[in-house]
Amino acid sequence: MTLYKLIIAYDGTNYSGWQIQPHAQSIQRCIERALGTILQTSVRVIGAGRTDSGVHALAQCAHFIHPDAICCEKVLLSLNGLLPKDIRVLQLEAVEDSFHARYSAKRKIYHYHLHLEQPPDLFKRRFAYCPRFPIDIDLLERATHAFVGTHDFTTFSNRGGTHKSAVRTLHRLSVVEEPGGIRLEFEGNGFLYKMVRNIVGALLDICRGKLGVEEIPALFAAKDRRKGAQAAPPEGLFLAEIIY
Amino acid sequence: MTLYKLIIAYDGTNYSGWQIQPHAQSIQRCIERALGTILQTSVRVIGAGRTDSGVHALAQCAHFIHPDAICCEKVLLSLNGLLPKDIRVLQLEAVEDSFHARYSAKRKIYHYHLHLEQPPDLFKRRFAYCPRFPIDIDLLERATHAFVGTHDFTTFSNRGGTHKSAVRTLHRLSVVEEPGGIRLEFEGNGFLYKMVRNIVGALLDICRGKLGVEEIPALFAAKDRRKGAQAAPPEGLFLAEIIY
Repeated sequence: MTLYKLIIAYDGTNYSGWQIQPHAQSIQRCIERALGTILQTSVRVIGAGRTDSGVHALAQCAHFIHPDAICCEKVLLSLNGLLPKDIRVLQLEAVEDSFHARYSAKRKIYHYHLHLEQPPDLFKRRFAYCPRFPIDIDLLERATHAFVGTHDFTTFSNRGGTHKSAVRTLHRLSVVEEPGGIRLEFEGNGFLYKMVRNIVGALLDICRGKLGVEEIPALFAAKDRRKGAQAAPPEGLFLAEIIY
Repeated sequence: MTLYKLIIAYDGTNYSGWQIQPHAQSIQRCIERALGTILQTSVRVIGAGRTDSGVHALAQCAHFIHPDAICCEKVLLSLNGLLPKDIRVLQLEAVEDSFHARYSAKRKIYHYHLHLEQPPDLFKRRFAYCPRFPIDIDLLERATHAFVGTHDFTTFSNRGGTHKSAVRTLHRLSVVEEPGGIRLEFEGNGFLYKMVRNIVGALLDICRGKLGVEEIPALFAAKDRRKGAQAAPPEGLFLAEIIY
C-alpha cells in the first residue's frame, strides 16, 4: 500500500464544489473517475478541505491509497489528458504513510479577489467579485484587524461543517493591491463552512456603512449566525495553499 | 430618425460569433433582442466586423437607427441589465447620419494572446492560446516583419468574406510582453475572414520550425489558401479597437 499526494488547481465555475454529491458534477468525482480509469480500480480521493460551488483552487491538496507502486510522472500526464481542461493536477508524488490531506494540514491560505474598476472589466468577472459600491481601502484594512486572532467564529460560519468547536485562529488577513482591484489573503489554522465568504461579507458591509468596525466584538460574542453578514459570492474565492 | 453608436465588450466563449445565424446564440442577436425589448420595436444592429465563434471583443462597434430620440444613459443601463453578464455595452451615443459602423472604420486593431508558462496556468486558458512548444520571441519578432505592409492576403484568409479584393494593409504587427506570455497586436485598414488567426498560425509554424521566414514572400505570391498555415484557435483573439 502506498499513499499518494496530489496538488490540484481548478476553475470551480462549472462545478458543484469539491465534494461528491448526488446528481452534481464535483471536482472530487472527476478526479476519482480519471484515476479509476488509469489505475483500473476504484479510488477514493480525500481532499484537504471542501470548496463550495463556484469556488476555485490554485493548489487544493488530496491523497489516495493504491496497492501498487505507480509511475507518478506517467499517471500525472494521463490524468491531465483525461480530466476536463478546467481541472489540472499540478503535482503527484508518493508520501509517507502518516500523511493525511486533511488532518496533517497545519495552515490554509485563501484568497478573495475584489475587482474595483467602474464599470467592471467583464473579463475579470469569472475570478473576482465586483461590488457595486466604492471600497475605501484604508477603512477595509482597519476593519480586517477585528477578525485576526483566536475567536469563536460561530457568527461568521454556516451550519454544515462537521466540527464541534467553532474556535479558530486567523493568523493573517492581508489586503494586497493587484491590477484592477485588491486581494484579501486569509491564513489560518482552519476554516469553518463559508467562514471566509462570511467575513468578506461583513467587511463589505463595513465598507458600505451597514456595519461599524466597533460592532465586530459584540458579533463574535453573540455566537449567532443570524447576526452575521451575508456571504460574499463564490467567484472571488480561491483556495490558495495548504501548509503541512 | 437618429443614428446611435454602441461600443460593446464580450467574452465570446459561449457564442457562435458576432453574426446572427440560425440555431445559434450570437452576440448580435442578444443585443438586438435586448434593444428590441427596451425600445419596444424590432431593431437591426450593424457591427463593424464579424468575430468568429469563441473570439472576444474589448470594443466592438455597432450602430442602429431609431425613429425617436432616446435617453442614452437610461438605455445603456437597461441594456446591461438585460444582457447576459458576458456581454457589456460600454458606450451608447447619438452620432451624425453619415456614420456607418463598418464603412466608416479607418483601421481595426486585433490582439492575439499567447500564454507561455509551462505548465499553463488554467486560469489564463479562456482568453489565451497555450502552445505546446517553446516560443523564441526574437524569432517571432523577426517573422512578424514579413507580414507588415500592403499584400494580397489570399493565402492567409479563408473563403467566406464578402470582399472582392484580398489586398489589405497591415500597418503594424507588434509583439508585446505581458505577465505569463505575449500579445500580438495587429493594426490594419481591414482584415479578411480568419486573416489574423491564419497569420498567427503561420507565425507559430515558424516558431516550431515547420516554416521558414524566407518562405513567406512565396506564400503571398502563390495566393493559395491551401499553402497557408492552420488557423490559431479562437480563444486567444480579441477585437481590441475600431478607429474611425
